Amino acid sequence: MENFSFLNPTRIIFGKDTHTKAGVYTAEYGKKALLHYGGGSIKRSGLYDQVVQSLKDAGVNFVELGGVQPNPRLSLAQKGIELARAEGVDFILAVGGGSTIDSAKCISIGVPYEGNVWEFYENKAIPEKALGVGVVLTIPAAGSESSDSSVITNEDGLYKIGLSSDAFIPKFAILNPELTYTLPAYQTACGATDMLAHVMERYFTNVRDVDLSDKLCEALMRAIIHNAPLAASNPEDYNVRAEIMWCGTLAHNNLIGMGRIGDWASHHIEHELSATYDMAHGAGLAIVFPAWMKYVYKHDVTRFAQFANKVFGVEYDFWNPENTALEGITRLERFFERLGVPIRLTQAGLADLEANIPLMAQKATRKAPQGQFVKLEAADVEKIYRLAM
Amino acid sequence: MENFSFLNPTRIIFGKDTHTKAGVYTAEYGKKALLHYGGGSIKRSGLYDQVVQSLKDAGVNFVELGGVQPNPRLSLAQKGIELARAEGVDFILAVGGGSTIDSAKCISIGVPYEGNVWEFYENKAIPEKALGVGVVLTIPAAGSESSDSSVITNEDGLYKIGLSSDAFIPKFAILNPELTYTLPAYQTACGATDMLAHVMERYFTNVRDVDLSDKLCEALMRAIIHNAPLAASNPEDYNVRAEIMWCGTLAHNNLIGMGRIGDWASHHIEHELSATYDMAHGAGLAIVFPAWMKYVYKHDVTRFAQFANKVFGVEYDFWNPENTALEGITRLERFFERLGVPIRLTQAGLADLEANIPLMAQKATRKAPQGQFVKLEAADVEKIYRLAM
Repeated sequence: MENFSFLNPTRIIFGKDTHTKAGVYTAEYGKKALLHYGGGSIKRSGLYDQVVQSLKDAGVNFVELGGVQPNPRLSLAQKGIELARAEGVDFILAVGGGSTIDSAKCISIGVPYEGNVWEFYENKAIPEKALGVGVVLTIPAAGSESSDSSVITNEDGLYKIGLSSDAFIPKFAILNPELTYTLPAYQTACGATDMLAHVMERYFTNVRDVDLSDKLCEALMRAIIHNAPLAASNPEDYNVRAEIMWCGTLAHNNLIGMGRIGDWASHHIEHELSATYDMAHGAGLAIVFPAWMKYVYKHDVTRFAQFANKVFGVEYDFWNPENTALEGITRLERFFERLGVPIRLTQAGLADLEANIPLMAQKATRKAPQGQFVKLEAADVEKIYRLAM
Repeated sequence: MENFSFLNPTRIIFGKDTHTKAGVYTAEYGKKALLHYGGGSIKRSGLYDQVVQSLKDAGVNFVELGGVQPNPRLSLAQKGIELARAEGVDFILAVGGGSTIDSAKCISIGVPYEGNVWEFYENKAIPEKALGVGVVLTIPAAGSESSDSSVITNEDGLYKIGLSSDAFIPKFAILNPELTYTLPAYQTACGATDMLAHVMERYFTNVRDVDLSDKLCEALMRAIIHNAPLAASNPEDYNVRAEIMWCGTLAHNNLIGMGRIGDWASHHIEHELSATYDMAHGAGLAIVFPAWMKYVYKHDVTRFAQFANKVFGVEYDFWNPENTALEGITRLERFFERLGVPIRLTQAGLADLEANIPLMAQKATRKAPQGQFVKLEAADVEKIYRLAM
């Protein structure tokens, strides 16, 4: 096991009706909030009105900025930074999913910084100060509600870059599973894929002797795999929605990764798909992850066999563990198919794939080889894209 | 699943050599520390000298108070409160196991309180202010290094009472598995029993639809059961010691109990044993828990069968689940026997059991019926003690 340091101070407020306390929790941290959200869904559902009422009841002043898109854009975050400065905002309340939260985090480090906030994402500067961020979560997926990361897309060049910093960890996150009843089946499926990927990125490691965290990862994966398909057939089952929502948070608050070194190549390979085609992150991961697995599994057949056995219940073939390993990858693909997410690039209706693949492979490896489990150069990434065709 | 609120802001610093940073972390929170510890073992091992050097290197002034005993005494904590006030201490560094940490927590709420600190434990007052507490952990067991609880024994009447409060959550906890190499096998076993009990208290619940937390509990229990016996045969195996240490923390930082209502009767029933006979808490739990299970398992045979199947790999008997449930309890007893802890009161060499059992049963239920899974009156507790004979 590797040495580690773990800190996750986000207060989680979980359960029915909890969103009506958004104002109370915001008032603990700020006097004037930026209410940040995405499209019209929170207005249609009535959530917007309830949060606004809650802020008013708690005596919190606020300004608002909506319009966050999936794969959140740098330009909107920059607009938010200007607005927050002009209005003297001291706290950001994000109401939405990972994109809204990531955009809020970007604004939170941009407000007190004199330079261009993109410099942080390019690793040209390190965030030292940030406004506090609170969350009312509507889409369980990214885990951004208590994670230390933010992923932003710079439209100028279609770069999608993630940044991790303790400054990004939200002060509180309100998780009401009822708010996810209206989430379409496809979005629910993409969310489940994203959280499963967050666990798998940590699970595939070269670090030996990680028994407890292996078991915790497997527990989370089995819970996601058990519950995600149930939400499709009964979207208003509170307990199923609650399990999925809690899975999404624990998949990415770093706890299960302690003492391990995760891989994360698949996320980077997917980010280029999202950046180029503006596709849903979860859908991209369902395409990339099985291809990555096929490309690297021989590096550690035992670990892939353990994945197959412990996560999907594949009987362990003592005489041919490779069969067990491969069956695990097949089961994962069948699971994604059941969820209704694409598992091949060719299913996703993407234009100019042949021309874009070499470019995406270059971009995915522009800083360095990708991946800690197996180090991948551009040529490897290109092969993985082709395995995903 | 029940609504819940979760907050665990303890910074965990885990791994080799980490104890040499005790001074650096202490300096973040205080100018003058109370260095609190138990008997002579930290002096014999050299840990005391290293921590003192670390405090000096970081420029932290300190006074010290040793002498914490297992089942930490109110009288020593009161001495610590007076010392801390007289010396202007603003932070407490506990170096030791659960007893030392619990004693430090008692001091931490006593210093800023004008009344008698025992009033908090008697629920006559609620802690509102506390000094910060940091930990260098030497015994993985109680989970007190990041828990919100403290258990203190009042020698006047032999009362052992636990108190939970957010004010008790330590600021940081330094966990170096190497510090546990010299822990005797019996103490290691008692620690493993304690942490397993912390999970079981949460596992046996009447709350339905707790799929993820069930799986997380089962993962933790399997990791404890796998690793604890390995430490006996190879006490200096870093990875085994690391797994056990991390298990102890996660078993009691409340994460795995979220959305559930735990039972906790066995802890209260055991506390009276410890208070009366000054026996090790873990040893007492190994005696009490199987007896409690035998007394209550019919209340929910399915849950006990799930425990047997998921934790001990007992084949599920579809036609007679009660057999599966009972086999799980037997396997637990065999596990405790392998660890070398007593599983019967009569093995523990306790005097005047016949006379003390009714008294202990009364004390265990003096505030109210004990247990949330099954509510137990004094007569039930008495039967459980007799089942443990």
